[in-house]
Amino acid sequence: MIGALLGIQKPLVLAPMGSVAGGALAAAVSRAGGLGLIGAGYGDADWIRREFDRAGGARVGIGFITWSLARQPQLLDLALSHKPSAVMLSFGDPRPFAEKIRASGAKLICQVQSRAIARQALEARADVLVAQGTEAGGHGGERSLFALLPAVRDLAPNITVLAAGGIADRRGYQAAIALGAEGVLVGTRFIASEESLASTAAKQRVVQADGDATVRTTVFDIVRGYDGWNGITGRALRNKFTQAWHGREAALRERIEHERKAYWAAVERQDCDSAVTFAGEAVDLIDEVLPAAEIVRRLVP
Amino acid sequence: MIGALLGIQKPLVLAPMGSVAGGALAAAVSRAGGLGLIGAGYGDADWIRREFDRAGGARVGIGFITWSLARQPQLLDLALSHKPSAVMLSFGDPRPFAEKIRASGAKLICQVQSRAIARQALEARADVLVAQGTEAGGHGGERSLFALLPAVRDLAPNITVLAAGGIADRRGYQAAIALGAEGVLVGTRFIASEESLASTAAKQRVVQADGDATVRTTVFDIVRGYDGWNGITGRALRNKFTQAWHGREAALRERIEHERKAYWAAVERQDCDSAVTFAGEAVDLIDEVLPAAEIVRRLVP
Repeated sequence: MIGALLGIQKPLVLAPMGSVAGGALAAAVSRAGGLGLIGAGYGDADWIRREFDRAGGARVGIGFITWSLARQPQLLDLALSHKPSAVMLSFGDPRPFAEKIRASGAKLICQVQSRAIARQALEARADVLVAQGTEAGGHGGERSLFALLPAVRDLAPNITVLAAGGIADRRGYQAAIALGAEGVLVGTRFIASEESLASTAAKQRVVQADGDATVRTTVFDIVRGYDGWNGITGRALRNKFTQAWHGREAALRERIEHERKAYWAAVERQDCDSAVTFAGEAVDLIDEVLPAAEIVRRLVP
Repeated sequence: MIGALLGIQKPLVLAPMGSVAGGALAAAVSRAGGLGLIGAGYGDADWIRREFDRAGGARVGIGFITWSLARQPQLLDLALSHKPSAVMLSFGDPRPFAEKIRASGAKLICQVQSRAIARQALEARADVLVAQGTEAGGHGGERSLFALLPAVRDLAPNITVLAAGGIADRRGYQAAIALGAEGVLVGTRFIASEESLASTAAKQRVVQADGDATVRTTVFDIVRGYDGWNGITGRALRNKFTQAWHGREAALRERIEHERKAYWAAVERQDCDSAVTFAGEAVDLIDEVLPAAEIVRRLVP
């Protein structure tokens, strides 16, 4: 069912990680039989155009942060003009965008972090639900995949459900299937792929990190000015920045001008002690940078 | 291997839930082929004696909160005098107790919430590691089972590993096996068993609750005076008490005398709006109170 629905041979979708999942990575996943999603992040029209170009005609989709898209809805028209095979919406109300996406011929994938959010996605008549556990890297909610996934499956017995969060090897895929998913959406494992846009330093941190070393936090959203939607946090590797500010968010806001300037300078020089490396708990299971096609081959049958 | 090691026919261990897993429930799980663990909680010698008596000679074990046991180590001697087949230690350093437990002939089960804690359990030469995900009810840590379990498996390839947290039906069991466990440790599903010591009101809350409705919090430990060890929280159903105090822990401490009196009065009258109902995210998957033996039969092969 998932194969026909999304036009894929392998039950794997690339998570649309902002600044990481560009056109080259998305195309590599699609060419390996899965579905690559370009990560639109907070929306930069030139970036989106460029990454669709870099996909080189491969059949890919795109993923948006819904609350951010609501502020610049023209980006959806831009994306649809590139004929994505699917559009994924996360973190916000998908209903205002659902009809336009469906009318374009693209499949609507909604990522959900709770049963309440799953119900909203069903109202939007999503083609695919992604049950995303809190173990996931980057933005996400509070519920863990182990209990959330079967609960979403029971809520939507006739909808295609994918599992996301904490999945980086074949064991995770098999567990997801046992819990009722038809396939997996994978992010963190692909940060450490040859084709990802992550910096070399960030890839090395993901390869070396212990899963105990991640934290769900809002400090990177605060410092970047991206804290536009309540109820989500970003899972990232702990670093000097989280040590300084996690739990001291009010103090960070008080000196935001100074800290923001310092933060972007750190990003510029790829300084992972300050710059965020969004990553999930599955970093434990990631030991080397691999070509995306090899990751797909190992992860799913 | 797990069968021979623990002397059981079914790969299921009852979580030693304080005030819930008494002798009757532990015995029912053991008689159904699993291993029942009496929950020693914060340690009341008379309670422990009574519940061993109520087990009626069934082959059961016992579980302690390690940091609490360290304050009244004589309770371990009391427990060992009842010849438990296994002793489980959670939340604290197991090493000071390991040798005495092994010398008694009981198996040592260590529950671990991170790779760091797993390493400590290996130093204690635990016979069994329980990888406990944050989705679990009651006390626990921050890491989710989906990524923690394979990481613990990889750390201890030759030790028996059980999975705990978010498991309430056969799907959860199968996923745990896929991720590398040899069996499961199950708590929340057994709150809603006929034999559990939970109040009728608490059992009904577990049956009716949505998994979105749980929260990891310290407020129930603070009000009861049980906040003796950093780094753990208790997952419970949200109620009026969590609404009032979760996130306002300092304020709760300021008026602790008044609140503590009111809290224990609420427990006395089984008022679940104030009294804690510890429960995991798997409450989504629990729809009825069942005999413990039927739960075992449905959950594992």
